[in-house]
Amino acid sequence: MARQAQVLFDFTAEAEGELTVNEGDILTIVAQGSGTGWIEVENAENKRGIVPENYVQVFNEESLPPPDDAPTWTEQATYDPGTWPNQQQADSDSWEDSDGEGAKAGSQRGAPQGSPRQGRANAASTLLGLNRLALPLGKLNLDNYLLGKCTVTRTDKIPLVMGESGPVWETSSDNLVCVISSPKKSTKLHGMKSFIEYQITPNDTLKPVSRRYKHFDWLLERLISKFSAMILIPSLPDKQVAGRFEDDFVALRMERLQAWMSRICLHPILSSSSVFKHFLHAATEKEWKEGKRRAEKDDAVGGAIFSKLEMFNAVEFHSDEMEKRVDHFGKFFRSADDSVKQLLAVGNVHYRRCTTELPKDYRGLGKALKDVSQSFSMSNHHAEGSLTNALSFAGKTYTDIGDLVASQSKMDLRLFLDSSCEYKSLLSGFPEILSIQKAGLDKIKECDRLIQMNKMAPGEKDGVVQRVNVMSLGLQAEVNNFHESRIRDYKESVRQLLYNQIQLHQKIAEMMREAYMRFEFES
Amino acid sequence: MARQAQVLFDFTAEAEGELTVNEGDILTIVAQGSGTGWIEVENAENKRGIVPENYVQVFNEESLPPPDDAPTWTEQATYDPGTWPNQQQADSDSWEDSDGEGAKAGSQRGAPQGSPRQGRANAASTLLGLNRLALPLGKLNLDNYLLGKCTVTRTDKIPLVMGESGPVWETSSDNLVCVISSPKKSTKLHGMKSFIEYQITPNDTLKPVSRRYKHFDWLLERLISKFSAMILIPSLPDKQVAGRFEDDFVALRMERLQAWMSRICLHPILSSSSVFKHFLHAATEKEWKEGKRRAEKDDAVGGAIFSKLEMFNAVEFHSDEMEKRVDHFGKFFRSADDSVKQLLAVGNVHYRRCTTELPKDYRGLGKALKDVSQSFSMSNHHAEGSLTNALSFAGKTYTDIGDLVASQSKMDLRLFLDSSCEYKSLLSGFPEILSIQKAGLDKIKECDRLIQMNKMAPGEKDGVVQRVNVMSLGLQAEVNNFHESRIRDYKESVRQLLYNQIQLHQKIAEMMREAYMRFEFES
Repeated sequence: MARQAQVLFDFTAEAEGELTVNEGDILTIVAQGSGTGWIEVENAENKRGIVPENYVQVFNEESLPPPDDAPTWTEQATYDPGTWPNQQQADSDSWEDSDGEGAKAGSQRGAPQGSPRQGRANAASTLLGLNRLALPLGKLNLDNYLLGKCTVTRTDKIPLVMGESGPVWETSSDNLVCVISSPKKSTKLHGMKSFIEYQITPNDTLKPVSRRYKHFDWLLERLISKFSAMILIPSLPDKQVAGRFEDDFVALRMERLQAWMSRICLHPILSSSSVFKHFLHAATEKEWKEGKRRAEKDDAVGGAIFSKLEMFNAVEFHSDEMEKRVDHFGKFFRSADDSVKQLLAVGNVHYRRCTTELPKDYRGLGKALKDVSQSFSMSNHHAEGSLTNALSFAGKTYTDIGDLVASQSKMDLRLFLDSSCEYKSLLSGFPEILSIQKAGLDKIKECDRLIQMNKMAPGEKDGVVQRVNVMSLGLQAEVNNFHESRIRDYKESVRQLLYNQIQLHQKIAEMMREAYMRFEFES
Repeated sequence: MARQAQVLFDFTAEAEGELTVNEGDILTIVAQGSGTGWIEVENAENKRGIVPENYVQVFNEESLPPPDDAPTWTEQATYDPGTWPNQQQADSDSWEDSDGEGAKAGSQRGAPQGSPRQGRANAASTLLGLNRLALPLGKLNLDNYLLGKCTVTRTDKIPLVMGESGPVWETSSDNLVCVISSPKKSTKLHGMKSFIEYQITPNDTLKPVSRRYKHFDWLLERLISKFSAMILIPSLPDKQVAGRFEDDFVALRMERLQAWMSRICLHPILSSSSVFKHFLHAATEKEWKEGKRRAEKDDAVGGAIFSKLEMFNAVEFHSDEMEKRVDHFGKFFRSADDSVKQLLAVGNVHYRRCTTELPKDYRGLGKALKDVSQSFSMSNHHAEGSLTNALSFAGKTYTDIGDLVASQSKMDLRLFLDSSCEYKSLLSGFPEILSIQKAGLDKIKECDRLIQMNKMAPGEKDGVVQRVNVMSLGLQAEVNNFHESRIRDYKESVRQLLYNQIQLHQKIAEMMREAYMRFEFES
């Protein structure tokens, strides 16, 4: 059977070859343009065309639990390292201004309004690899670390401590908080290029710095190259070519950049990293350039990050135990990934119902009641007035309820879905991290083989085992950190959803009660 | 453009040539089988077949206000009198047992559950003319009345009085109320025929009588032949071949028969008619047969009913004024008919949304939250328990809300829509009644022509004018009665809807509040 996908958001074709699709449509996938950000599909009327990849949810073998004899997703999820250097090349060549925000400054194409993922897929940014949240295994230089060839500098260590559920990152007492505000449209090159500048104020300096989306993008790329072997890096809100200067979009983008920043601030390792501090503190052009150069020269990237881990009284695990742990994590994350995706799928359908269909019903009933009131008023009957007034008021009430349901759901359900979207994205980073752990465990087996073939001295293996053990501690700390954030965030997002829904239903009941009172006349 | 129709209720094809359709589907009409109760349609996949006529809402020229130069619906709405005698023939030939309830007693075909018009169209009953609520003009013998050839008996007069908005029916002080209860399945012919018997208890005798659907049918037919020239006769709930012994159906049928009886009881003329009294009081087989024969011999039927009208100090209207009044009524009823149909159309869509799609969303969210809870519980993290318990409770709450919304809407919205359905049916009787008035007014013009041609003495016209005036008084009284019922019923049905919806939204808020409390844990 051909693979299918469900459309998450309305998309209107604007160029040759694109296909207009509506939220909820089921499409058949013709071809997945790997890395282009677009996907070729066929709709129910057999029309073909391309749509942005992130506008659809693909139903395929990967989103279902694999049958017992099928390869697991951790095995499937391997990148082709050959494509990466070219992408990096393209990246550094075109870095300074092709941030996707200046490219088509003049053209304002209509963007979907108020959808959970407002914005049009930007093929260019995906080509630059910016949507990838982990370095591929081949770029990690993991062997370098495993064989003890990394130079560890004491100054930049990553401390681990024992928590209730195993190793955890040592948390700093800083409680770093950043506030993004005052989005402002700026131009350069005599108005040829336009972009939005945001003010970021961290609570450690209280001095606002000015940043563009491209600076966030740069920071993300640095965090990926430095930490992604061990830490889940949250993804930035999608890029947008069209309509990105519209107020609604700017507000939504800022809200999501704030969520991203907050997530970085709450991560003990990311928030205390020097590259993040540089991002928050560099105030002048000169400071920015210096810090940028310094960060890009940092060689503790990829697998080398494990050499920075430091834990007193570290528990030593047997490699079988480490393997079991990786397997259990894999099971957990696959299951969580499936259930979060399912929640998003039904949530998106409900979002559409509550922002489109249900308000349309209420407004339709409102109009129908008003029309009934108007036609009844033609009777000239002496007792008509009270009824037609009440009906007209009920009509207005239903119309108002339609508006309320639409606007409330657009806010409440979007916030709830946004949070699960973040987790869907975070969970997608786990296969990478687990495959790195597996590579470490494989190294131990390789050592055994080499020792059997007398190509390695038994003593050499001990160092490898010890370093894989450190990797395992890092994994556990990151998993524990993930669990803590997840428990906190899901508690908060469902709680907030319920709270807002309670308000909504109470408000509807109240509005209806007011209309009900109008029917308390003598007939 | 081909005429189209929207499907009001799911219909599953059960026989050769039938087409399965779903609520909300848009169909193209291929052929309207006049009088068969079925309609041939083509669906979006170009499949053709027949569906019951009363399962679809036809969008055509008639349901829109006619353009200025188009014939009005009062002109369109003329029956072909030629078909009526045959139908009556079929009726009296097959009366005693082919009431459509015994025909297929053994076969229990699945019927749609809980739809506003539960029941399958019965082609046979439509052929018997039982769905027609008025005698055609040709069967009225109106000329007999207009030319003063009816014998008026003082004993059976219909009194009119002046009300605030013109002539009204004199109301009796009886306040007749009937209660239908205790539906019981009975059989006859050694179990070959099965039917449901209901107990009807009127408040004037307090003695219950046993009646079957076919007795209601007979009463309806008598009321039509006697009163339909002047009075709107409410239609009985639809017949049903399949599933008519199922408890749900019997309960719904009884509820609708009760609504029908109540409407007759509230009409001053119908409730005090001897045929209705006979229906309520005949206790034995003998009494029933005698009263039935008497009622069927009544010759004060059709146009003769106007000769029974009696009003002291009756106002005399000029024929121009009567014509204007008929035109105004026509305008009112066309407008009311359009707006009530529109209300029903949007109401039916909303009914489907609230009984099918919205509950599915809530249950889907409920299941997704439970699944998320279950997958999260695999983490073994020490702080997981509180979250997964709360999520699981929220999941159960959403599932319960889905069930609540479905069952409440099935009740509340159905009651509301049923009431508008009754009015749609009543309004459909007005074109008949107005065309009878027009026939009276035309008679006056005919008199003028005959006088001009010296074929009539001017004095003869006076009697015709006076009798048309009496018709006009009857029309006004019936219109006023309709307005009063309508004001009372719409007040009550919208009031009740709002009341029930307030309860629903309060209950949802309450259930969500309980779930919300589960999220008040320390994380």
